[in-house]
Amino acid sequence: MDNRSILLQSMHEKKSCLCVGLDVEFDLLPEEVKHAEDPVFEFNRQTIQATLPFTVAYKLNTAFYECLGPKGWETLEKTIRFIGDKALTIADAKRGDIGNTAKAYAKAFFQNMNADAVTVSPYMGNDSLLPFLEYKNKWTIALGLTSNPGAANIQMQKLSSGHPLYETAMANMADMASPNQLMFVVGATRPAELKALQQRFPEYFFLIPGVGAQGGSVPEVLQAMGPNPKALINASRSIIYAGSGPDFAQKAGLSAQNLQKEMEAYF
Amino acid sequence: MDNRSILLQSMHEKKSCLCVGLDVEFDLLPEEVKHAEDPVFEFNRQTIQATLPFTVAYKLNTAFYECLGPKGWETLEKTIRFIGDKALTIADAKRGDIGNTAKAYAKAFFQNMNADAVTVSPYMGNDSLLPFLEYKNKWTIALGLTSNPGAANIQMQKLSSGHPLYETAMANMADMASPNQLMFVVGATRPAELKALQQRFPEYFFLIPGVGAQGGSVPEVLQAMGPNPKALINASRSIIYAGSGPDFAQKAGLSAQNLQKEMEAYF
Repeated sequence: MDNRSILLQSMHEKKSCLCVGLDVEFDLLPEEVKHAEDPVFEFNRQTIQATLPFTVAYKLNTAFYECLGPKGWETLEKTIRFIGDKALTIADAKRGDIGNTAKAYAKAFFQNMNADAVTVSPYMGNDSLLPFLEYKNKWTIALGLTSNPGAANIQMQKLSSGHPLYETAMANMADMASPNQLMFVVGATRPAELKALQQRFPEYFFLIPGVGAQGGSVPEVLQAMGPNPKALINASRSIIYAGSGPDFAQKAGLSAQNLQKEMEAYF
Repeated sequence: MDNRSILLQSMHEKKSCLCVGLDVEFDLLPEEVKHAEDPVFEFNRQTIQATLPFTVAYKLNTAFYECLGPKGWETLEKTIRFIGDKALTIADAKRGDIGNTAKAYAKAFFQNMNADAVTVSPYMGNDSLLPFLEYKNKWTIALGLTSNPGAANIQMQKLSSGHPLYETAMANMADMASPNQLMFVVGATRPAELKALQQRFPEYFFLIPGVGAQGGSVPEVLQAMGPNPKALINASRSIIYAGSGPDFAQKAGLSAQNLQKEMEAYF
């Protein structure tokens, strides 16, 4: 089965489009895991086991692993290996460079780390995406329109054509890559734009961060995306830090289940 | 002495604005170092020693280290430590994310790795730069206008104001950060734009890749930038792969010296 069919089937079976963001900060780890050989991995392992029934994807933000040095890079690899094909794995790396450099990034994440997907930043243009798109059985997830105020600085600039930059950028990328390989990041806190983009790019999956701590809501997002949404809705802190005691994993599981319940009517 | 004074002094003393890009691909290493305990580090060490008299900065493209896994991350750290304060160290990471994530990246490169500078991608907007700018004694180097064809897709889009996006993006960033903390990446293959940008942002340093293998020339760049150029001109492959035999370091040194000779009249 191809990538897209695998993802759609998993969403259909779990009635979920939940992506859990494993943005783990060492200082916030519960005491219970702090003395494990690899505390972050142990936290991830228990969190994944508890949330897996409700979750179709895990997103690992590389920053939180890089700031732990070479050991953190190992934990990142180990976690992606642990998830294996139980769910979609996303290296949230937002890389963006050209030529041999982009090739090396694609190799790092797709080949060495065997992540299913990697996020990329399109500022350097379409040629910076090509080396990722050469991996036909992987997902390249490009930044489209993000939730933060800074989106106004570049993404939302109005072009002389009358369109906002993000729309033109997304259209250029969609011209180059099929919905079986390319997804877009679109923030949860802009439901009107989300709906317009869904109608403009109906076949493309959107990775949607910004629910929970960042202010977006699951019902609002799903209303914008419609039934059988081609969406991965990411929640990080509201799940992984739902508890901070010995029952942290159980609480993470409950939090994931609550979000999944908000989703199931749409499948 | 502050960052900027240190850099200006080193440029003045060496009569050079050369930045050597340590974009090391394992497969291209000379036989001589392939059996060292850490072949890439050994290659870097010898290359740095040979090029240091002519070079004011070293740029390490993180992709080439990441694609070697945790061991590569160690080599990256070790190389930056080896350079120490002998020259400016740039982690060419092109990171771009927000909030806690950007904070974690800044910590990884500025605090843990102790790099003097890190490159960032501005697609997510000004707030994605703030956590880097909190490190007052470090350089944040934001992508402005790059050399690759893909620059047309986003950077060179014409805004409704009549300006190209990169110019507005750079002006927004310059509003937020002083020339003592912020530099811009501007490609060497666009001398006309380089000159216009130099006049628009005369106090800001530009990191200028694209000479040598990528087609830009040092005299053209320096003509655009003027005397005492606030520029770091990066060359990678033309220096580090100048030779491929036992004398690779000596050849790298000669290649760096040749570029420095093209520069000295400007200091």
